[in-house]
This record gives sequence, C-alpha cells and structure tokens, in this order.
Amino acid sequence: MPPTLAPNLRRLIDDLRTFLDEEVAPLEDRLREQGFGAILPELAELREEVKRQGWWCPQISTEYGGMGLSLLEFAHVSEALGRSPLGHYLFNCQAPDAGNMEILIDHGTPDQQARFLEPLLRGEIRSCFSMTEPEHAGSNPVWMSTTAEKDGDDYVIDGHKWFTTGADGAAFAIVMALTNPDADSPYQRASQIIVPTDTPGFEHVRRTSIMGEEGEGWLSHSEIRYNDCRVPQSNLLGAEGGGFVIAQERLGPGRIHHCMRWIGICERAFELMCERAVTRELAPGKPLATKQTIQNWIAESRTEIHAARLLVLDAARTVDAEGTRAARKSISMIKFYAAGVLQRVLDRAIQVHGGLGITDDTLLSFWFRHERGARIYDGPDEVHKYVVAREELKPYGLRLR
Amino acid sequence: MPPTLAPNLRRLIDDLRTFLDEEVAPLEDRLREQGFGAILPELAELREEVKRQGWWCPQISTEYGGMGLSLLEFAHVSEALGRSPLGHYLFNCQAPDAGNMEILIDHGTPDQQARFLEPLLRGEIRSCFSMTEPEHAGSNPVWMSTTAEKDGDDYVIDGHKWFTTGADGAAFAIVMALTNPDADSPYQRASQIIVPTDTPGFEHVRRTSIMGEEGEGWLSHSEIRYNDCRVPQSNLLGAEGGGFVIAQERLGPGRIHHCMRWIGICERAFELMCERAVTRELAPGKPLATKQTIQNWIAESRTEIHAARLLVLDAARTVDAEGTRAARKSISMIKFYAAGVLQRVLDRAIQVHGGLGITDDTLLSFWFRHERGARIYDGPDEVHKYVVAREELKPYGLRLR
Amino acid sequence: MPPTLAPNLRRLIDDLRTFLDEEVAPLEDRLREQGFGAILPELAELREEVKRQGWWCPQISTEYGGMGLSLLEFAHVSEALGRSPLGHYLFNCQAPDAGNMEILIDHGTPDQQARFLEPLLRGEIRSCFSMTEPEHAGSNPVWMSTTAEKDGDDYVIDGHKWFTTGADGAAFAIVMALTNPDADSPYQRASQIIVPTDTPGFEHVRRTSIMGEEGEGWLSHSEIRYNDCRVPQSNLLGAEGGGFVIAQERLGPGRIHHCMRWIGICERAFELMCERAVTRELAPGKPLATKQTIQNWIAESRTEIHAARLLVLDAARTVDAEGTRAARKSISMIKFYAAGVLQRVLDRAIQVHGGLGITDDTLLSFWFRHERGARIYDGPDEVHKYVVAREELKPYGLRLR
Amino acid sequence: MPPTLAPNLRRLIDDLRTFLDEEVAPLEDRLREQGFGAILPELAELREEVKRQGWWCPQISTEYGGMGLSLLEFAHVSEALGRSPLGHYLFNCQAPDAGNMEILIDHGTPDQQARFLEPLLRGEIRSCFSMTEPEHAGSNPVWMSTTAEKDGDDYVIDGHKWFTTGADGAAFAIVMALTNPDADSPYQRASQIIVPTDTPGFEHVRRTSIMGEEGEGWLSHSEIRYNDCRVPQSNLLGAEGGGFVIAQERLGPGRIHHCMRWIGICERAFELMCERAVTRELAPGKPLATKQTIQNWIAESRTEIHAARLLVLDAARTVDAEGTRAARKSISMIKFYAAGVLQRVLDRAIQVHGGLGITDDTLLSFWFRHERGARIYDGPDEVHKYVVAREELKPYGLRLR
Repeated sequence: MPPTLAPNLRRLIDDLRTFLDEEVAPLEDRLREQGFGAILPELAELREEVKRQGWWCPQISTEYGGMGLSLLEFAHVSEALGRSPLGHYLFNCQAPDAGNMEILIDHGTPDQQARFLEPLLRGEIRSCFSMTEPEHAGSNPVWMSTTAEKDGDDYVIDGHKWFTTGADGAAFAIVMALTNPDADSPYQRASQIIVPTDTPGFEHVRRTSIMGEEGEGWLSHSEIRYNDCRVPQSNLLGAEGGGFVIAQERLGPGRIHHCMRWIGICERAFELMCERAVTRELAPGKPLATKQTIQNWIAESRTEIHAARLLVLDAARTVDAEGTRAARKSISMIKFYAAGVLQRVLDRAIQVHGGLGITDDTLLSFWFRHERGARIYDGPDEVHKYVVAREELKPYGLRLR
Repeated sequence: MPPTLAPNLRRLIDDLRTFLDEEVAPLEDRLREQGFGAILPELAELREEVKRQGWWCPQISTEYGGMGLSLLEFAHVSEALGRSPLGHYLFNCQAPDAGNMEILIDHGTPDQQARFLEPLLRGEIRSCFSMTEPEHAGSNPVWMSTTAEKDGDDYVIDGHKWFTTGADGAAFAIVMALTNPDADSPYQRASQIIVPTDTPGFEHVRRTSIMGEEGEGWLSHSEIRYNDCRVPQSNLLGAEGGGFVIAQERLGPGRIHHCMRWIGICERAFELMCERAVTRELAPGKPLATKQTIQNWIAESRTEIHAARLLVLDAARTVDAEGTRAARKSISMIKFYAAGVLQRVLDRAIQVHGGLGITDDTLLSFWFRHERGARIYDGPDEVHKYVVAREELKPYGLRLR
Repeated sequence: MPPTLAPNLRRLIDDLRTFLDEEVAPLEDRLREQGFGAILPELAELREEVKRQGWWCPQISTEYGGMGLSLLEFAHVSEALGRSPLGHYLFNCQAPDAGNMEILIDHGTPDQQARFLEPLLRGEIRSCFSMTEPEHAGSNPVWMSTTAEKDGDDYVIDGHKWFTTGADGAAFAIVMALTNPDADSPYQRASQIIVPTDTPGFEHVRRTSIMGEEGEGWLSHSEIRYNDCRVPQSNLLGAEGGGFVIAQERLGPGRIHHCMRWIGICERAFELMCERAVTRELAPGKPLATKQTIQNWIAESRTEIHAARLLVLDAARTVDAEGTRAARKSISMIKFYAAGVLQRVLDRAIQVHGGLGITDDTLLSFWFRHERGARIYDGPDEVHKYVVAREELKPYGLRLR
Repeated sequence: MPPTLAPNLRRLIDDLRTFLDEEVAPLEDRLREQGFGAILPELAELREEVKRQGWWCPQISTEYGGMGLSLLEFAHVSEALGRSPLGHYLFNCQAPDAGNMEILIDHGTPDQQARFLEPLLRGEIRSCFSMTEPEHAGSNPVWMSTTAEKDGDDYVIDGHKWFTTGADGAAFAIVMALTNPDADSPYQRASQIIVPTDTPGFEHVRRTSIMGEEGEGWLSHSEIRYNDCRVPQSNLLGAEGGGFVIAQERLGPGRIHHCMRWIGICERAFELMCERAVTRELAPGKPLATKQTIQNWIAESRTEIHAARLLVLDAARTVDAEGTRAARKSISMIKFYAAGVLQRVLDRAIQVHGGLGITDDTLLSFWFRHERGARIYDGPDEVHKYVVAREELKPYGLRLR
C-alpha cells in the first residue's frame, strides 16, 4: 500500500528505510535497556552521518540549512522516521525542538536567532516548550497562572509548569506566561519568552515518571518551577500578548508532525504483528496467522492505518496549499483519528504477541506506554472532536463556543 | 471537505447536485410513499433530461455512448448520485445493469451486443444477474447447484437463485450455471449465460421481502427457479467455464461502485443529522447540537466519511492505473470499511432524529433497511477481511487459503 | 445459563416455553406475512387458552385478576414471552396497555376503573398512551404544547401527538396535556386525562410508517390530533397537575418490562444464530460455526445477554425491595445497556444469516427494524446515561441538572 | 450499587475497606516510588495486624487456618482487597501462592504439606508456578518442552520457563514438566513437581521487564532455566502425568480470583475518575463532570463494572454449588468480559485525568501497565471466547475442537 510518490521522494524514503534498518535499529535495543543517555555518543555519530547524507532538518527551508521539503513531502519522510523512536531525533526534526525552530524562524529577532536558533539548527543544543500547568486543564489553553511581570528591562517570571518535554539537558525553554492579564480577550494575555535553563529561578523539579518510566534527556518530561526567574525583555518572542497566537501557529503543524510519526509507529507495529503471526505456532505447523481473529486484526489494522495516512496526507496538502488556518478542521480530524488508530494497532499487535507483547523485549510496550498520551497531548480527542463539530455546524448557522 | 477536482469535473458535480436537489428530490417522497412503479413516468422524463444534458451512462466509454469517465472521475460522480436513491437509475449506471453492460461490452458477441447490450445502453430495458443460491453460502462463490446441460444447440438450465436484483420487469438475466462440473479447478466449472426472462422455465417465484419491503421493479430482489429453461448455446458469454473469471472481473469495479454510492448516502445522512441537530431544540433556544454527544457523532462521522472517501478514491486510482487485479486488496479494504462507516453514520443520524429517525418520513429509515445488506452483498465483511489479511501476509511467506 | 429459579417458577417458565413453541410460533409466520389484523381470530383463541391455564395478566395482582407475580418473577416470565412478538399480547401484559392498567389501578376512580380498567383487564378492549409530540424532543418530557382547558364541566383538549402506540383500534387514550401551564414547576403543569377514541375531535391522522411498515392495530404507532376534543373533567386521572409524576411512576416499571422482553428477543435471536451457524455450510462438511469470527460473536453475545439479564434481575429485585424511585439508577443502566446488547445481538445474528438475515423470512429483520427504536423510546440512551452519571456524582457533591 | 450482603459479610467488607483506606493506602505511594522491596518491613507489620483481626487467608478453610469463606463470599472480599495493589498480598491470598496452596492442600503428601504448605500458609515463605515457556504459545498448554526424566530416585528437570511470577525471593517453584511424553493423550504427559529454588540447576535468568518495570520480589515475573535440575521423586504432586488436570483445577478458581480483584481495581479507578471529574475545572466553576462525554464514560463504566460484578458473582455461585467443571463456561465468560471492562475503565479514567493520568502520580498508570496482561494471562480472550462458543454449540450437535 505504498503511496505513489515522485521518484526522487521514493528514493529518499527507501534510503531512509535502509539507514534506519541497518544503522539505527541496533541502537533501539540499547535505548530500551540502558536509556537515552547511554547511547548519546552513538547518536551523535549517526547525526553526523545524517548531515553528510544531506538529510539534516528535512522540515526546515534550505535557507536555514534544511532540506526544504513541503509539508506533504515531509509527511512521507516523517512516517519513515517514525518507525524508530530515535528517527526524528537523529534528523533534528524532533518535538519540541522542531516547533521551537519554527517559532524562532518566524518570530525571532536576529539576535535571538543567532543565540538560540542557530545552535538548535546545528543540533548543538536542545530546547523545551513550557506551557502546560498542573493546576489547569490543558484543554483550556488560555487559562494559566504563570506570570511575567516587567521590572526594569526584565521580565520576572513566576509559575509552575509540567510536561515540559526534554527540559532535562535543554539549553533554553520557551515559556508561556501572562504579560497582559487585563487584556480584554483571553487570547491576548500571554506571551512567549525565551528562558535559558541556567537562569537563576529556573527550578527543574523532577522528570515526571510517565507510565513507569522517568526517562532522561530528550526522552523525558519535566516539572519546572519558575521562581522570580528574571530574563531581559529582549527575550520576548514576537509581540507582547501574542503568545497564544504563536502557540496556535506552532501547534497546527506540530499535530500533523505527530500524526505522521504515528503512522510510522503503526507500520512498524503492524510488521511486528505480521511477523509474529506467521512465526508463532499454536501447534506444530499451525501459525497464529491461520486464526481468523488474527486475520481480522491484520485487515482492520491495514485499513485503518491506510485511512489515517490518507487523511494525514490530505491535511498536509491543505496546509501546503492554503495554510494552517484553512486546515484547522483537517488537523483536528487526524489528531483524534490517528491517535485512535495508533492505540488500537498497538493493542492488537500486543495481543498477537501474547506474553511477549507486554514485556519490554519488543518496542510494542515502549509505544503502548509512551503513546497512551497521544490521545491527550496537543489537545485531547474530546477537544478536537469539538473543533470538527464546530466547523461542520457553521454552514448550518450555528456558532458553538 | 470537498476533494480538489479538475475544474470541469467540479462543474459537472455541481450541476449534478443542482439537478438532484431540484429535479429529483421531490420524487423521493413519492418513492417512499408509493413505490418505484408509481413514479416510472416521471423517472422516464428525467432520464431524457439526463440524456439531453450529456450525462447518460457516465461510466461507459464514449464509443458505447457514455461519458467516458475514468473510474476515479466516476467515483466523484457516483458519490454525487448516491445522495439520492434514484440517482444511479436516472443516469443508467445502476446495479446490476451497469455490471451487465460491462460484461456484454467485454465478452458479448456482436449479436449479443445488438440484442441485449444496445437496448440496455439506451435504457429501454433492464436486466438482472442471477448468481446467489439460497442453498449455498454466497461467501463460497464456486459452490453452486444450478446446472446448464447441453442438449442439441441449447443449454438446459436447472436451478434455484435468489437476490436476483431487479428481476421484476427485467428483459433478461445473466445466469451463473455449472457447465463443466468435472473441471479440475472449481473456478472453471461455471459459465455465464444470457436468459431472456420470457423463456419458458424461467419462473419468477417472488420478490423476496427485504427488511419489511417487497419492493418492485428495479428496487426489488427476486427468487427465481430455472426449470428446464432452454436457451441457445449462442447465449453463452465468453468461454465455457469462464463464468467465475468474468464474475470476478465484474465484481471488482462493482464493489467500488457500491462504495462510491455509499459515500453519497453518508453525505446526505450527515447533512440530515446536522440539520436536525441545529433545528431540534431540547428546550427553547437550546438545539441538540449543543450536546457534546451529538458533537462527537458529527466529528466522528465527518472523519470516517472522509477517510472512506479517500480510501475509495485511492482504490479507483489504482484500478485506473494498474487494473482491477492489482487493486484487489484495496477493493476489499474499502468494501468492509465503507460499509461499516455507512452503517454507523446512518445509525447516528437516526439517533439524532429521535422518534422521527425510525419513521419512514425521512430517507434514513430507507437506507438503514436497504443498506444493512451492504455488509453482506458482494462479499460479507468477513470475506473481505480475509482477502486483505491473505494479501498482507504473502510477503511474510504465508499463503492462506 | 438458565438462572436458578424457585421450582414452581421454573415449571411455569417451562410451560410457557412449550406453549410459545407449539401454539404461538406457527402464527408468527402469518404475522410477518399477513399482519396483525389477519390473525386476530387465532389470537383471541389463544388468549382464551392463556386464561384457562391461569396465566392471564401475570403482572397484575390477584385482587385484579392477575397472577400476582413480583416484578422479579415477572422478569423471568417476560423474558420467556419476549421470545415471540406475540407473547406479551397473548398474556395481556403488552405495552401500552400494561402501563395504562397500572395507572388506572393506582389512580383511577371507581367509575374510571369500571368503565376503562375492567374491560382492559378482561382483554376486551385495547388502549393507548398519548404523550410524545412531534414538535418537541421526547427527551424533555415537560416541554409540550397540548392543552386541556376547562370549559364548564369539561376539558377541551387541543394538541398534536404521535408515537401513540396501538391507537388504531384502541377504545381510549390516556393523554398528557397542560392543565396548569402557569404552575411554578414545569413538573406540575400537565395532567393525564382519559379520552375515548370515539370522542369528537379525536382525529386519527395516520398510522406512522416505521422502518418500512405501517403496521395495524396493536402493532402500529399513530399520529393523533386533538381538535377541541371535549371530555368530562371526571376523566382526569389523579390530581390535576400530577400528570408528570404519574408518567414517571409508569415509565420506571415500563422500562424494566421492555428490558425483560428484549432479553427474550436476544435469546431467540441467539438460538437462530447458533442454528444457522451449525447448519449453514461454507463447503461440504464445514459449517459456519467452525469460523472463529462466528465463535467470537456467539461468545460475546452469550456473555452480553447474560450480563444484561443479571442487571435487569438486579433492578427488578431493587424495585421489589425498595420501590421504583430507589431503582432509578438501575433502571437507567439497564435501559441503555440492554438496548445496546439487543441491537448488537440482532446485528450479529443477521450477519451470520447472510442474505437470509436481511429478508423477512426470519424474525431477525422484524426485530432489527422494530427495535431500532429501543435506544430511543422511553428515553434515549443519552438521557439514561446522564441519569446514571448524575446519580453517581451526587456522593461527590456535584448536582448536575 | 453495593450488592445485598449478609450482615456479617457486609460488616467484614466495611472493616476491610477502612483498613485498606487507613492503613494500606499510605504505603501505596511508597510502592510506586520505591518498589516492593523497600516496604517489606511495613508489609510484614500489616500482615501481623491482618492475622490479629482474624482475616488471614480468607480463601482457605478453617481447618488450614483460614477464614473458610465460600467462593461467593470470598468474591466480595477479593473485590474489596483488589482496590489496593497490596490487598491480596497482605491477606496472604495473592497469586500465585493462593493457587499453590490449593494444589498442596488437594494433592500434597503429608510431608509436602509440612515442608511447603505450612510455611506458605503462615506467610513465612513465598512460592511460584512455572508453566509458561517462551518457545510455545501459552494458549496451547499441552505443548511444552520442559522434561523431567527419572534418574534413580530423582527427577532431572531441563527446560525454559518465563512469566514465573514472584520467583524472585520464592522458596520453591511448582514446575510443569513432561514426565510421560509418550502418553496417548497430550493431557496426560506432564506432571507438577516441587522444586526448591536453591536446588542446583534452578537458574534465575532475569526478572523480565514488563511494561517498563522490572519489579522485584512478589511483584515481578521471572525467566527461569532448569539445567539438569535434580529433585527427589517424592516432590511429585499427585499422580504422574496428572499435571495438566491439576493445572486446570487450579486455573478455574484462579481466574475467578483475578476477575474479583479486577472489579476492585475498576471500583478504585472509577472513584478516581469521579473525583477528578468533579474537582478538575475547565474554567472557573466548570468542572469536567459537566461535560456530556465524561458523563457518558461514568455511566458506561458504572454499568459495565456492575455487569461484570454480577457475572463474577454468578460464576462463583455456580462453582460453590456445582463445582469448577460445571462453571467452565461461566468462568470463560467472565475472564474475557471482566478483562475488557477493566481495560476500558482504566482507559477512560486516564483520559479524564488528562496529563496526570499518564504520569505515575496516580495508581492508574500502574494498573494500565500491569493489567494489560489481563487479556492475556490465564488464557487470552480469544481462547476463552472459543470455550464459550464450544459449550454453547454443544446442544446444537456441533463438537468444536
């Protein structure tokens, strides 16, 4: 079911597949057993190889040193990379850095770009994005308590964040904080501010243990306290009060990136399921795949994965042609649909593996745990369904709020 | 979520929509209340209008007097027509006639074409396809009892069929019968034979009542007995023993046609659901659409319908580019997936309508009943899932049978 | 999986099963083919037999000539009767008459009882209940437009109702109408009033066609207009403004009755599914039941049916021990759960039957169509889920409205 | 929805709830953060308290020092204990020790009982059960490679096992091994043999990491190799070749025990969900519980949990009255149904918690990971569905194998 691709894109995808299978796959075992930190040296070498191949930052324009792929082209690349938990990191298109690069490209001052964007693009540093607060439901993004008050030339930031992915080891955070709490519109109260993580008052509370794993480095999610954390006002990104608008800009493509990656995970899990189904025997000469239930799962998974892929490509095409705003409904559609497919495919693949499926001997457990959040992060299913319904009902004259 | 179309196709679809909304929709009420027979005069007039507009037989090549659309183009047209239960009939692309036209074009002798194909293409007669037998599971198409024995220059056909759609009023049937029962391969035992319905021994037993409705004419499904039914051997279609191969050729595109039509039904049901949701009030000023459950259904329906559409278009593209055989997996994928979406969307639309939804005052009940068979006819879900699994497992070295 | 029953109840159930299998089943074919009216003579004879056996009105106290079963005991009887579409009618415990009997027993004056209840108990007349209005969502039962204005000694009723089950041929209706439109509480504005159907101004508009069938007599659902329909005020049931309270009293047990009946339908459909699965062959000697998908459906159906039964019995036990009000949550639980099981079991049974399943040659189509309303009538699933959630959240200090 | 219980059982359950809430709950946080080993001292103290209260070994007859509860009574106790991951361990009714106790009581010689059963009953040692092999599908329990060959007075055991729960720190294992590989029936080839874990050749390979956690002690699952592991033949349990029969005896009640425990987990997760729903605000004054989707989940969860409970109690009643064999179908029904409810309830509770739900700050993640295996261990869903279908189809004359 490989989609029809332009020949050069087809060749690129094939090359990436080979690279991942031959160079990256062996590292995955060590990732599962020893964690992210232990394999940093090997990762660094592979990143150099990626640069040498001309594959670095596929999502970034050539002007900034990337491959300059369209979103539709990148969708195919991202699916290929998603087959490995290390894929996006190796190509420097991993969340949250990819999103931060976008913000800095679109809104960074020359000075901000020099200090923060360029080393990020070169892969010398990592960054994080500090938005979600434990005290407030993430599904209401305009409700937050973190404040950034002006004091002289500085902002003094106070607040409490969590799910700040990759904060462990990051060089800087982009923080959402209220700068204009009295603005009429709740959408104009917050700003995005760059905070180097060595700023006094930036307190890394803990890497929150998620589904049994604390993780480390890029593969971790931290709780952060900002205690009278002082940065110069020149660290403001874009206009004051414009934080929410920038966040929306950032989250749209970010959701597509996640969905593309999930299709890659689905494909890998699907392969594991098929391999297991044909090799695991219920009795001598009778593989699991002869059971109709297994066949049903294979057929349903293949169909749902392909449906999700086509929806994601369709959304990417819309973004390329008409912009993120026009694709709002499409993006919400794929966000909940693809997350659901991902969870079902992983669940079926685990069930086909039997006991082995729940061990950490395969990647299935890794994804089953790490991606339970897929139906929650970047907007829970429920919010995205609401967005789709709201857009659908507009032509009928109903404006939901 | 309208797909991006070439401008002339876009214009055609828009024109068809207008035609259906303005000219055909008023007839639908009478169809539901009075049945197919009562509106034949109006249908005949509308068919003339369709011909005048140059829309006749959109699926047929220009050589044979049709519009000559590719399957991908026809997919869009078929979705538009599917919005009305009368759409395909009015454009002379309705099952089972469309399939019979294909067979006669591909396998008919000049004489067969003159006698049977041409009046069919002109819409002067209707036809039927007699394959399924009450005594044998349709999911095993090579297991049948109807025989056609040679006697002189004739075949003498004996057997029992049902679900012979549109037999009531049809001019001829194409019958599947065993001509070579001793052939090694079960796939080479049956032939397709043309039987005019006025042939002695062609016994129309009854229009089988389906989901509460006996129907009539094109909108009915008959039980037929062939009692020593004698036709000349020149009525054989294609090679003797080639009936199964022809049937497979015919069913592939036929399944795509059904799926395309279902998308149209889904869209119409979706609109009815949205209209009801914004107008039906739970209390003054509080329409149903303000309830989150309704919003969920709208979002899930929109997403599933669009996923089904993209899968169907993808399959049509594959057929156009590589032929039916190469699209076998794609066709099985859409057959069960789209049928499932159809059933769910209709079910949700009915639930949103409350009591009204189960009455025959809307089209929802018509489709809920008429299309429960969608998961059964032309291969039940279970068979199509098997086909997908079988194809998926081939690269893993397993050959399911 | 037969529940453990007291020996005399066990014996009763066995006798009922025999009666239904031997005496009633043959009539079911004629019901499907010829309709309710055509078999009235045979039904009348069977009703006499039921009386002779001492089975008449099982749900009614002995004081009023019934069997005097507890609700828990009746639950078992009702399941047995539910196996036939004619079961409840033959035992004079069919909706809506059973509910009307309850109202008249609890709230009828001696005169009302003599004129309306007694012939109803004897099975000489039928009745109907006129509550739902086409213009208002049934899920908001206090929102209605039908009014009953006092004029001299009479009420003059004006309004529009539908889903008045069994109105065709009924002797009287119990009508919900606003008598106190200005009462503070919306729950105290309506009254229940007896309206003989031969009252001038009682306009039987039509038997609404439901899922392809207009039906007739008891098996039909009518649209009614009340046009200056004048009845004496002595036809008021209970206190003026008390209509909603009486309706709630009536609907609670009514919902349990429906659920019990559905279990019976499920059991019958389950048997049809199993019979088909073991007799229908995919190939010589290979019945459908050898397919794992069919096995899954059988296992899931059996489990869900038994779960539904246990929930219904549990609710009946609660009503017997603590009254309807205490069982409100239990009743809402079974209403949506059992309706869902019913729809799934029927759907699976149809799929197992293949083409035969969608014909009217079995009872499956009858129930698939007639009981799609089960998720709507007497409160849609969505309302019952709300009730359960509301009750569950009370102990947590949240009062939903 | 508390089931109606005899007063003394009601009181016991209430006391257990208080004990768990007050004494055990505080330890749960430390279990999640520090693991099982770190809290052993506190667990030992609490076990003494349980003994003092007379609650020790509730599932064991008084003759052997337990509470002597019937299975139906224990079902209620087990649900109460299941609310905490530590409940069953504290009461010495945890798997796999509870099952091993049963085997030793039913099949142990006086000497075996003195050496292995008595310290187990006193809680001085733990044990494990070594059956599943990595090389063979657990769903075919008679297919195994581990052998026990006679040599002098000993058995010499060779083989490879995993999912040997609690092997880490256990005093002995009960091992399934082929002793009679040539027996006609595959059900008569294996025996159960007691192997002290300090026997030379008992190689503890690893605690297999399951869903991100290696665990330790009782809360871990080990891979074991038996390398020429020699034990006296007097360690044989029951008759030679009787291992499979004993395993079946053991697994039946064991499955009920798991299901009972799962209901307890469901109740705890349900409470967490409700608490979160009423306290987490989407906006000031607007808790999550006001959203209809959340209400739907609460209603569906409550209903499914209660359905599962009633099914489990029904199965326990059948075992008490008629024995495990008669309850085979009931046990398979609850095994897959309750496991499904468990997974759905945990999934919904996590979704209601949003980001918090995927952290290890609540028990939800613990159970989501630890109980994904519920649909696999002690027979995957698919096997239990097959058993139910097989039993259901017997009366129809079909004997599935």
